[in-house]
Amino acid sequence: MKKMWSGRFKEPSSKLLEEFNASIFFDKALYKEDIQGSIIHSKMLCKQGILTEQEQADIEKGLGQVREEIENGTFQWLVEDEDIHMSIEKRLTEIIGDAGKKLHTARSRNDQVALDFRLFCLANSETIRDLLKSLVGVLTDIARDHKETMLPGMTHLQHAQPISFAYHMLAYASMFKRDFERFESLMERNNFSPIGCAALAGTPHNIDRHFTAENLGFNEPTVNCLDTVSDRDFALDLLYAISVAFVHMSRLSEELIIWSSSEFGFVTISDAHSTGSSIMPNKKNPDVAELIRGKTGRVNGNLVSLLTVMKALPLAYNKDMQEDKEGVFDSVKTAKISIEILTEMLACMTINKENQESACKKGHLSATDLADFLAANGVPFREAHFITGRAVAVAEDKGVDLSELTFEDLKSIDDRVSEEVVPLLNLRNSMNARKSYGGTAVEAVEKQISYFDGWLTK
Amino acid sequence: MKKMWSGRFKEPSSKLLEEFNASIFFDKALYKEDIQGSIIHSKMLCKQGILTEQEQADIEKGLGQVREEIENGTFQWLVEDEDIHMSIEKRLTEIIGDAGKKLHTARSRNDQVALDFRLFCLANSETIRDLLKSLVGVLTDIARDHKETMLPGMTHLQHAQPISFAYHMLAYASMFKRDFERFESLMERNNFSPIGCAALAGTPHNIDRHFTAENLGFNEPTVNCLDTVSDRDFALDLLYAISVAFVHMSRLSEELIIWSSSEFGFVTISDAHSTGSSIMPNKKNPDVAELIRGKTGRVNGNLVSLLTVMKALPLAYNKDMQEDKEGVFDSVKTAKISIEILTEMLACMTINKENQESACKKGHLSATDLADFLAANGVPFREAHFITGRAVAVAEDKGVDLSELTFEDLKSIDDRVSEEVVPLLNLRNSMNARKSYGGTAVEAVEKQISYFDGWLTK
Amino acid sequence: MKKMWSGRFKEPSSKLLEEFNASIFFDKALYKEDIQGSIIHSKMLCKQGILTEQEQADIEKGLGQVREEIENGTFQWLVEDEDIHMSIEKRLTEIIGDAGKKLHTARSRNDQVALDFRLFCLANSETIRDLLKSLVGVLTDIARDHKETMLPGMTHLQHAQPISFAYHMLAYASMFKRDFERFESLMERNNFSPIGCAALAGTPHNIDRHFTAENLGFNEPTVNCLDTVSDRDFALDLLYAISVAFVHMSRLSEELIIWSSSEFGFVTISDAHSTGSSIMPNKKNPDVAELIRGKTGRVNGNLVSLLTVMKALPLAYNKDMQEDKEGVFDSVKTAKISIEILTEMLACMTINKENQESACKKGHLSATDLADFLAANGVPFREAHFITGRAVAVAEDKGVDLSELTFEDLKSIDDRVSEEVVPLLNLRNSMNARKSYGGTAVEAVEKQISYFDGWLTK
Amino acid sequence: MKKMWSGRFKEPSSKLLEEFNASIFFDKALYKEDIQGSIIHSKMLCKQGILTEQEQADIEKGLGQVREEIENGTFQWLVEDEDIHMSIEKRLTEIIGDAGKKLHTARSRNDQVALDFRLFCLANSETIRDLLKSLVGVLTDIARDHKETMLPGMTHLQHAQPISFAYHMLAYASMFKRDFERFESLMERNNFSPIGCAALAGTPHNIDRHFTAENLGFNEPTVNCLDTVSDRDFALDLLYAISVAFVHMSRLSEELIIWSSSEFGFVTISDAHSTGSSIMPNKKNPDVAELIRGKTGRVNGNLVSLLTVMKALPLAYNKDMQEDKEGVFDSVKTAKISIEILTEMLACMTINKENQESACKKGHLSATDLADFLAANGVPFREAHFITGRAVAVAEDKGVDLSELTFEDLKSIDDRVSEEVVPLLNLRNSMNARKSYGGTAVEAVEKQISYFDGWLTK
Repeated sequence: MKKMWSGRFKEPSSKLLEEFNASIFFDKALYKEDIQGSIIHSKMLCKQGILTEQEQADIEKGLGQVREEIENGTFQWLVEDEDIHMSIEKRLTEIIGDAGKKLHTARSRNDQVALDFRLFCLANSETIRDLLKSLVGVLTDIARDHKETMLPGMTHLQHAQPISFAYHMLAYASMFKRDFERFESLMERNNFSPIGCAALAGTPHNIDRHFTAENLGFNEPTVNCLDTVSDRDFALDLLYAISVAFVHMSRLSEELIIWSSSEFGFVTISDAHSTGSSIMPNKKNPDVAELIRGKTGRVNGNLVSLLTVMKALPLAYNKDMQEDKEGVFDSVKTAKISIEILTEMLACMTINKENQESACKKGHLSATDLADFLAANGVPFREAHFITGRAVAVAEDKGVDLSELTFEDLKSIDDRVSEEVVPLLNLRNSMNARKSYGGTAVEAVEKQISYFDGWLTK
Repeated sequence: MKKMWSGRFKEPSSKLLEEFNASIFFDKALYKEDIQGSIIHSKMLCKQGILTEQEQADIEKGLGQVREEIENGTFQWLVEDEDIHMSIEKRLTEIIGDAGKKLHTARSRNDQVALDFRLFCLANSETIRDLLKSLVGVLTDIARDHKETMLPGMTHLQHAQPISFAYHMLAYASMFKRDFERFESLMERNNFSPIGCAALAGTPHNIDRHFTAENLGFNEPTVNCLDTVSDRDFALDLLYAISVAFVHMSRLSEELIIWSSSEFGFVTISDAHSTGSSIMPNKKNPDVAELIRGKTGRVNGNLVSLLTVMKALPLAYNKDMQEDKEGVFDSVKTAKISIEILTEMLACMTINKENQESACKKGHLSATDLADFLAANGVPFREAHFITGRAVAVAEDKGVDLSELTFEDLKSIDDRVSEEVVPLLNLRNSMNARKSYGGTAVEAVEKQISYFDGWLTK
Repeated sequence: MKKMWSGRFKEPSSKLLEEFNASIFFDKALYKEDIQGSIIHSKMLCKQGILTEQEQADIEKGLGQVREEIENGTFQWLVEDEDIHMSIEKRLTEIIGDAGKKLHTARSRNDQVALDFRLFCLANSETIRDLLKSLVGVLTDIARDHKETMLPGMTHLQHAQPISFAYHMLAYASMFKRDFERFESLMERNNFSPIGCAALAGTPHNIDRHFTAENLGFNEPTVNCLDTVSDRDFALDLLYAISVAFVHMSRLSEELIIWSSSEFGFVTISDAHSTGSSIMPNKKNPDVAELIRGKTGRVNGNLVSLLTVMKALPLAYNKDMQEDKEGVFDSVKTAKISIEILTEMLACMTINKENQESACKKGHLSATDLADFLAANGVPFREAHFITGRAVAVAEDKGVDLSELTFEDLKSIDDRVSEEVVPLLNLRNSMNARKSYGGTAVEAVEKQISYFDGWLTK
Repeated sequence: MKKMWSGRFKEPSSKLLEEFNASIFFDKALYKEDIQGSIIHSKMLCKQGILTEQEQADIEKGLGQVREEIENGTFQWLVEDEDIHMSIEKRLTEIIGDAGKKLHTARSRNDQVALDFRLFCLANSETIRDLLKSLVGVLTDIARDHKETMLPGMTHLQHAQPISFAYHMLAYASMFKRDFERFESLMERNNFSPIGCAALAGTPHNIDRHFTAENLGFNEPTVNCLDTVSDRDFALDLLYAISVAFVHMSRLSEELIIWSSSEFGFVTISDAHSTGSSIMPNKKNPDVAELIRGKTGRVNGNLVSLLTVMKALPLAYNKDMQEDKEGVFDSVKTAKISIEILTEMLACMTINKENQESACKKGHLSATDLADFLAANGVPFREAHFITGRAVAVAEDKGVDLSELTFEDLKSIDDRVSEEVVPLLNLRNSMNARKSYGGTAVEAVEKQISYFDGWLTK
C-alpha cells in the first residue's frame, strides 16, 4: 500500500522498517480515545464552518461503525497502516468516502496522539485513584475490627513496642490516601487539551480549541502548541504515581510474606489467594504478595524508561516519543489488577490474634515505658535509657520478658524505681498509654478510624 | 566513647561498624533544621509542663550556642556521635548539663530525622520552585524581544514549519511553569508534622503535636505515627520533581548545543558561559548546557536509588532509610545551581536572527500551507497532502524552496491551485497564519506572553 | 480444573488470582527450550533406570507431537494451566497417558524454568553477538570506501580537528566489537546446567547431571542447587549487555539524526529507511535512528526492573522471579531488530562527501597543528596554545579560517612562526599528519581496517 | 587567573560557571593515577626524542614533589584550576619552569582523563575482586563447620525441605564467585591504554603508544582514538558488576535480618555489629545488614546515572562525561567497605543450631520424600504429589508434622505406601538423601567445599 505521506518519496519502505516503525499493534489500545477525539474534532470543524453538517454527520456515523468493527473483531489491523490514527482514518474513508479525508483538517498525528494518550492517562488515573480508595476502605474496615489485637511493633524487624493491628493497617491507609492525592494532583495539573495544536505551530484554520477542550472534559486548551506536541509530563506523572503506590504495596506485601511464614504466623492468606508447588506437596505460597512486590521492579523500570526516552529530545515531536506508550499501558494494567487483588486478599485474610499477642512476650516491648516513667520522675532521659538497658540485660539473663520482672528486680537495678511502674510495664497498658495524636492506643486509633471514615465518604 | 544506647550491650562496636554506620558526615547538613525542631519541641514540652521554663530557656540558649559553634567552625564532629541528632544533644548536655538530657523526652531519633529531613525538603522545594519562576521570567523576556525572529520549527530535527523564536522559548516557559506547579503540589501534599510520633507508636507523655506543627510552619500533625516514621514520600516527590525539571532542562540544553554548532549558528553562548580546550586553541565549548544535560542522569539515578531503597521495607524505621539523604542533598544542590546558571546563560546568550531566518529557506516550510489551502478549497486533506508532496519533489528537482515555486510551477502539478496561494507560501505569512489559540503567529504569541506575565506577577 | 498442586487446598483459587498468577501467556515463548529440556531429562532418567526405554520413547514422541501442535497453532493455551511447563506436561499426559506423569521425577518447576530461561538467554546472546559482528562488518566496509572522506571531527559538537569518515565509522566498530566480547563473556560465565537441582536441595533420585549438562550443550552442571534455582545473573548479564550496546547505538543514531539535518547534510538516509508526516508533505524523517535512540530507554528500564526485582529476595525461589521474563523477551526482541535495521540502514545510506568536506572550512580545524608546530620548535606547549588562540581570534576577525591565514598574518602574531608551518595548516595535511597508532591519517586508518578485517574473519 | 585555554576568549568566565564547571573537588581523587600517567608519558616523550633527558628528569622529580605536597596536605586546590590535570601541571610548572609546559605535548585532557579514570577503575576492580574472594573464604569456612546444621530450606519464605546451613552458605559462595569472575572479565575486556589518543584524532608527534601501554600495565594501546576518548564502557562495566554483587549481598542481608528476628532466631549478630535505639533500650538492631541492603539502591542509582549520561552523546568528548566519576567513586567506596564489613560480620555471627533444627519440625519438610518414594515405586509423579498433598492435610488436621505420621496414618491415605517409607520421612534422612550433584546431603556438600577450597587456593 502507498503510504499517506509518500508524495515526495521515490523508494518504497524497507520491509524491516515497516515492522520496526509501526505502532499499530500496541496503540490500537487507544481506539476509543481516538474515535472520541475525532468526533469532537469534527463537531468543532462543523461549528466553525469547515465541515458541512452532512459531512460531520457522516464522519460521526462512520466512526461509530469503525468502533463497532473494532469491538466485534472484524476490523482489519494492518502493519502498513502504521498506527491507530491512520488505520481508523483509512477505514473511515472506505466507509464514507471523501468526507473522511477531510477529518484531518487542522490537526496532525502529533496533536492527535497527544490527545488520545492524555485521555487514556487521565481516565486511568481516575480508575486507579478510585481503586486506591477501595483499598483504604478495606484497611479501615480491618482496623475497625482489630483495635485490640496487639502485635509487636517493629523497627529493624526487631520487636520494639506493642501496637495494635488496627494501627498497623492504618499506617498503610495513610500511604494509600497520599497515593490517591498524588493521582488527583496529576489529573488536575495535566487536564488541558492538546487537540488543535496541529504539527507544532498551530493552524491557519479558524478553529475553536476551547470548544474541543470543553467537550472532551478538559479545563482548557494548552497555552503553547510547540510544548504540547512534545509534552509527556502527564505520562511521567502517572508512571511515577504508580511507582510510589507500588513502593507502598511492596512494603505491605513484604510484611504479609513475613507474617505468613511458619515462624511468624501472624496472618494466614486464604487458600483462594495462595498457590502450591509442582514438586513439594506441603507448600502453600503467598504468590500474590510476592508478585506485587516483584512488580515494583517492573513499574519502576517503566518510569526509568520514559525518563530516559525524554531526556535531551529537541522540540517538537521526535519518533523516540513513540516509546511512551507500552510502558504506560503495562504499568496501568499492572497497577489496576494489583490493587484489586491486594484489596481482595486483605479482605479474605485470617488474622491470627493469638500468635500476634503471644509474640509480644518476647523483646521487652515495654522497655520504653520504664525509661519514660523514670524520665517523667526526674531522671534525665538519657540516664533513664541507660538504666532501662541494664534492666533489659537482667531480664535476658533471667530468661524472662522485662514485663515479667518483679518490683524487687527493678528496684535492685536503680532505686529511683517506684512500685507504680509495675502496671506500666504490662504490655496492653503500654500500648494503651500511647494516646498522643496519631498514636497506637485504642482511643487514638478510634480517632484515626473516624478520620478515614470521614475521608472515604467525602 | 560509650554509645547512648549501649546499656544492654556487652561488646564494643567493630571499628568498621562505626564508620559504616555513622551518618554524621552527611546529615550534619541538617543542623539548622535539627536545632529549630528541638527548640520548638522544648517549647511544647514546657507548655505541657514536662519541662520547667528554666529548663526550656537553658535548652534554647544552649542550642543557640551549638548553632553558633557549628557556624563558626568550632564544633567537633566525631564519628562516634553517629549522627547530627546525637552530636547536638551531646554538646548541648556538655553546655547546660542535665536539662539537655531531658530534651529527648517524648521523641525518638525516628521522628526527629523525619522532621529535620522533611523541613529540609520542603524549604528546598520552595527555593527550587522560585528559581523556576525566575527562569520562566527570563524566557518570557526573550520571547518579548523575538516575536518576529523566525526560525525553522522542527520535528525529527527536520525542518517542518516556520515559527518564531519567541514561540520556541515559550514552549520551555510552559514546561517550567508545570514544574513550578509540581513542586507546589508536593509541598502541599507533604506539609504535615512528624514530630511527636516518637519511635513508631506515639508516646504516653501528654504532648501537643498541633502546637509543634503550627510553630514549625506545617498545616497539621500527621495522622498515624507508624506511617510517619516510615514515610519518605516527601523525598521521593522532591527527587521526581527535580528529575522532570531536568528532563525539560536537558531538552533546552540539547537545543542550545545543536544551535551553537558551526552548522546551525542559531545562537552564540557568551564567552562567560563557554570554555576552551587544553589542546585545541580553536575551541569554544557549550559546557554549561552539556553539564546540565549530563546531570539529568545524575538526578535520575538519585530517584532510582530511593525508589529501590524503599521497596519492600517492612514498617517502621529500617536502617536502609539512612540512604535517603545523600541523593536528595545532591539532587537539590544540582538543581539549584543548574537552574540558576541556565537562567543566567539564557539572559546573556546572543540570538543570531539572520542565521535563523536564512535557515528557513531550506526544507519547504510552507508545504503545509499549500496542503491547507487545497483542503480549504475542497480538496480532501489526504489528497491535498499528496499533491503537495509532489510539489515538494518538483522544488527539490529544481533546487529551490517550495516558497520559490512560481504559480506556473504549481499549476502544472494540479490545476486546482489558484493564484491566491502564492502569498500564502511566503514564509513569514505562513508563520503569521498560525493564529489559532497557542499558535506561532505574532498575535497568538502576544497572548501567550500576556499569559505568562500575568502568572509571573501573581 | 483442579490444579496439579491442589492436594492440600480446601478452597478454590480466586478468579483474579488465576489471571494474576499465570505466566502462560508470556512464558509460552519458551516452549522449544522446555521440550528440548524435557527430552534430555527423560533420556537421562532412562539411562539411570528411572524410566523404561518404552516410557522414554513415548515421552519423546509425545513431546514431538506437542511441539507440532504448538507450531501449527492447534495447541490449547489455558490460563488455568498456569505456565508453559504445566501446559506441556498436561497435554503430554493426555497424549501418552501415565508415562507423562513420570517425566517430572527428579525435577521441579524451579529448575525447569531455570533451564528453559537460561537456554533462551544463551541462544539469544549468541544471535545478538553475531548480529553485532555483521554490524561491525558493514562499518568496516564503509570505512574502506571513505578513508579520504574528510569531515570535521567534533568534541562538544564543536568543530575540533579534521578526521576521516572511515575513522569515525571505525570508532563505532570498536564499540560494537567490545559489545560482542561482552556477550561472549556472559555466555561463558553462565554456561552451566541447572537441570536436576529440583526444588532447591537436589534430589534423592540417582540422576546424572553431567549427562544432561553435556547433552544440552552446557560446560558442566552448576555446583550448588540452592543458588541455581535462585540465580538470574545470566538474565541480568544479558540485559546489561543489551543496554550497553544500545548506549552505543544511541550515540550513532544521534549522530545520524544530526548529520541528516538540513544544516549538516553530512549523510542522507535512504527513502527506504525514512518516513513522512501526516500533515507536512515536505517532511522526510529519520525515524529508524530516532526509534533506536528511544529504545535505549526501554532496554535500560528492563535492566532496572530486574535489578530491582532481585534485590533482597531470600533464597530460594520467590514468585517475584516470575517477573524476570517479559523484560528479557522485550529487550532481546528489541535488540535483534534494532541491530538488524541499523546495519541495513548504514549499508543503504548516502554519504555526502562534499558537504562534509566543505564543513571542514569552518572552525579553524588545524589550530592544534599550529600549536603542535610551535611546541615541536621549542615553544612550551602551554605558550604555543596561547599564541594559537590569538591566531584564531585574528582569523575570526578577518572572517577567514585559520588555514587561510597567510604567513605574514601568522608572523605578526608571534615571530617564532616559520614558513614551514603554512602547509601544516592545510586541512588534509592536518588529517594525514595524525599517524600515531589509532589516529585518523589514512595510513593509520588502513591499519585499523586490517585489524577489523582480521577479527571479522576469525 | 587567566585560564590556560583563554587565548581566543574576550570575556572572563561567569563566577557561577567556574563553580559549575570545575571538577577539581572530586577528580583530585585521581592524583596518583594522573602523576603515574604523566611520568610514563614523559618517559615515552624522552625515548622518542621529544623531551631531553634533563627535561624528563625534571618533570619526574617535579611530579614527585607535587605528589608529596598533595599527600602531606600542603597542595593548594583552587577552583580556578578546574581539574586535577590542570592543577598538577600548573604546580609542576611553578616548580620546574618551562619543562613543565612541555609535558602536555602529544596528549590532551581527553586522553589524560580517560587514562586516569581507567587506571582507577581497573585497580579498584582488582581490589573488589579480591575482597569477594575473602568473602567466599569465610562462607566456605562457615560451611565446613555446619554441614550437619539443619534448617528449613525455604521457597516463597515457606518451609520446603530440610537443608544444611553449610549448603545455604555455599549458595552465596557460588554467587560471589560469579561476581569475582564478572570483575575479572571486565578487567580483561578493558585493559587497553588510552594515552596518546590526544584530543580525538591521534597526534602528529612521533609517539610510541605501545611503550606507554606496557609501562602502565596495559595489554596494548586502544585501536581507534576517537572511540577511546569517548569510551566509558569500563566504568559502566564496573558499576554493573558492583550492582550485581549488591543484589547478592542484599539477598544475604535480607536473610540475616529475617534470621535474627525474634521469631526466627536462626542467627545472632554479634554486639560488635549491632546498634541500639535512642529511645528504646530493649533494641538490638542488625544495622549492617540493613545498610548493605539499602546501599543496593545507591549503587543501582549510580549505574542508571551513567547509562543515562552516555545515552545519545555524539562523538567525541562531551562535557556530560564529566558526570562519570562521582558515581563510580561512590559505588567503589561503598562496595569495598560493604564487602569487608559483611565478611567480618559473618565471621563473628553466632549460628543458633537448636533454633534452626527445631524450626524444621514445622512445615512437613519431608513431603517431597513421600512423593518421591511413591514415584520410585511406580506411582506416576503427579499422582504421588496429589496423594502426598492429602497426607499433609491429614497431618495438619492432627496437629503434627508429616514426619510424625505413623505407618497406619499413611497407609490409610493410600495403600501403595509401604513400611520402608517411614525412615525416609525422618528429617535428617531426608536432607541426607539429596546426594545428587550440587545437593544438600553431607556428602554432596563436602564435594562443594572441596570445590571452593580448590578455587580459593588457585
